[in-house]
Amino acid sequence: MSKLPNISTSIFTVMSKMAAEYNAINLSQGFPNFPVDERLTDIISKLAKENVHQYTPMSGYSPLLSKIATLVKHSYGRTILPETELLVTAGATQAIFTTIMALVKNNDDVIILDPSYDCYEAPVLLCNANPVRVALNDDYTPNWEIIEKASTPKTKMIIINNPHNPTGKILANSDFESLEILLEKYPDIVLLSDEVYEYITFEEKHISAHTREKLLNRSVMVSSFGKSFHVTGWKVGYLVAPEYLMKEIKKVHQFLVFSVNSISQIAISEYLDIVSIAEIGKLYQEKRDYFRQLLKNSRFELMPCEGTYFQVASYAAISNESDVDFCKRLITEHGVAAIPISTFYADGKDLKLIRFCFAKDNATLEEAAKRLCAI
Amino acid sequence: MSKLPNISTSIFTVMSKMAAEYNAINLSQGFPNFPVDERLTDIISKLAKENVHQYTPMSGYSPLLSKIATLVKHSYGRTILPETELLVTAGATQAIFTTIMALVKNNDDVIILDPSYDCYEAPVLLCNANPVRVALNDDYTPNWEIIEKASTPKTKMIIINNPHNPTGKILANSDFESLEILLEKYPDIVLLSDEVYEYITFEEKHISAHTREKLLNRSVMVSSFGKSFHVTGWKVGYLVAPEYLMKEIKKVHQFLVFSVNSISQIAISEYLDIVSIAEIGKLYQEKRDYFRQLLKNSRFELMPCEGTYFQVASYAAISNESDVDFCKRLITEHGVAAIPISTFYADGKDLKLIRFCFAKDNATLEEAAKRLCAI
Ligand SMILES: CSCCC(=O)C(=O)O
Ligand SMILES: CSCCC(=O)C(=O)O
Repeated sequence: MSKLPNISTSIFTVMSKMAAEYNAINLSQGFPNFPVDERLTDIISKLAKENVHQYTPMSGYSPLLSKIATLVKHSYGRTILPETELLVTAGATQAIFTTIMALVKNNDDVIILDPSYDCYEAPVLLCNANPVRVALNDDYTPNWEIIEKASTPKTKMIIINNPHNPTGKILANSDFESLEILLEKYPDIVLLSDEVYEYITFEEKHISAHTREKLLNRSVMVSSFGKSFHVTGWKVGYLVAPEYLMKEIKKVHQFLVFSVNSISQIAISEYLDIVSIAEIGKLYQEKRDYFRQLLKNSRFELMPCEGTYFQVASYAAISNESDVDFCKRLITEHGVAAIPISTFYADGKDLKLIRFCFAKDNATLEEAAKRLCAI
Repeated sequence: MSKLPNISTSIFTVMSKMAAEYNAINLSQGFPNFPVDERLTDIISKLAKENVHQYTPMSGYSPLLSKIATLVKHSYGRTILPETELLVTAGATQAIFTTIMALVKNNDDVIILDPSYDCYEAPVLLCNANPVRVALNDDYTPNWEIIEKASTPKTKMIIINNPHNPTGKILANSDFESLEILLEKYPDIVLLSDEVYEYITFEEKHISAHTREKLLNRSVMVSSFGKSFHVTGWKVGYLVAPEYLMKEIKKVHQFLVFSVNSISQIAISEYLDIVSIAEIGKLYQEKRDYFRQLLKNSRFELMPCEGTYFQVASYAAISNESDVDFCKRLITEHGVAAIPISTFYADGKDLKLIRFCFAKDNATLEEAAKRLCAI
């Protein structure tokens, strides 16, 4: 009877709740615990007294649209038209749901890589379409041969996530070349590029779909101010799409949510004048490095991490419990919450890996590491 | 190729934009232009400096859920369980979209009354289901005989809007009795009761679905803090549903938007401790009375208005243009924006009626009335 019979409460809700119950340090759900930039909270305090409390336009607060266009230009050299190619959304999740709902039809195939963040599959199922899961290689690079085999004239969309949650992997130039060759064969496939961690990259900047000339006219790029500015609760994101796709996306958006929280949009618009985007990557790189250093003498094996605010670690040397059981015991016996990586796989593949969120103040990371090193 | 071939930009966007272009007084889209309660904006200013910027739980900020339960208890004597029967949404539009998406399946029928607010039909179409439009009587009461005829075992949902936008009509006790008799025959029909103007009623309080024992176990009630507290831009609403329906609604919600703007939720939660809900209806009743009085000597004929912040008026004595043309000329020649009522009808039925929003400060209403009386 359910339209989503196999979907249950998201792992982030489950783990955050359990962390709270056991008073564990919560490195599970991805959100920062350090203070938001004072300049941004000052803007909110000031704005509260201004005329900022009524509907913004359906596509977003106009000055914010212009400033996002400037940001995209500055970050990637790409010119977008704010009125026709840009939409402010209630977070990236809403951007992704709305895009899929607008573009994917009955019985279409949608290619989703495996492991994947958990919000792609439900909207595909609600469109009566088919999620086609394609496994990443063991090193989390896409396997273009299998992706090619999975592609057919029925394929409507390929979803990529770059930098990738949970693995922290970023796509190489060769990945984009393979993708472009594949898409040339299938003119109807739309690329949905989830780049919510676009500014949270370390040694190397990721390659954005914004910079790929062959992809621009068929891609929807999704980003998140919640992630970029450590305000995950605000639920303000945006998407960029060519006008012919945006027209369809806006039709859904206007009846799905109509518009997005006004004060938050206006605050971000003002903040974009003064914030230095480059510093965000540096901040998180320091966090990653510090967390990795703190865990050096633990029995966890740390996987590479090129972006996002997540560190994947193997506990194979500690236990051969399932990762879900291990995560539960980590909370109840050791007071640290993490996310089991099996939950990002369609088939629950268990590689004895768990994910820690290192977007935390140093004291939290230190106390968590102390507990983890004692295991 | 479009999934929504017949849907274009909403009339509210069109008219607000045109009003801005011509610098007209905007009585079209429904939003207040007077200041928000200072106590509420003080709360926002203060909160900005606190730890309120990360994800709230998926169903809503817990203290807000409890306070909504208290509000429902206080307003209607109904006890709801905050953790299992309540969901905070990014506005009522998202509540409605999510409910339809979760419950309506392929080829189901959904009964929508005519005229209706414009956000019900698109989600039904996106479910590959059939909107079945049933005309209200000429006095905007439901015609239960026709509704009964339109009901079949294929009917999955009936959507009511009480108080009704655009007509300001509230449902009578006898309407609920007829509805209850009808629903007894069709155990699978769910009632979606859009009550976003529940606190904006005048001589008589509306009868909420919350007070109908026979409906509770099969109804989804939708409300909007944007409307109740004059903060339409915040996009915070909520829905109440029995647990078996809520489970399905939450499955969609968590992948559609995951959670709702945190600061706004927390502010409303604190504000609910101090605000007196009864004053909201009084405020708007004064606005309605003042606006009607100002138009007494105009050539517009004013229809009854029992709730909402909209006044419907006939311009039949002034012109026999189509209502869309009349509204355009009202902007360009007379500097006042309104909404043509034909746009609320599936078939665009033109009764020479337009809708004014009177949720405006007195100076705005006076200047608008001056212009309208001069026609
Ligand atoms: C929307 S809750 C999940 C947050 C997140 O991005 C993550 O933890 O991966
Ligand atoms: C979401 S814009 C429309 C606002 C409204 O409720 C109305 O004008 O009817």
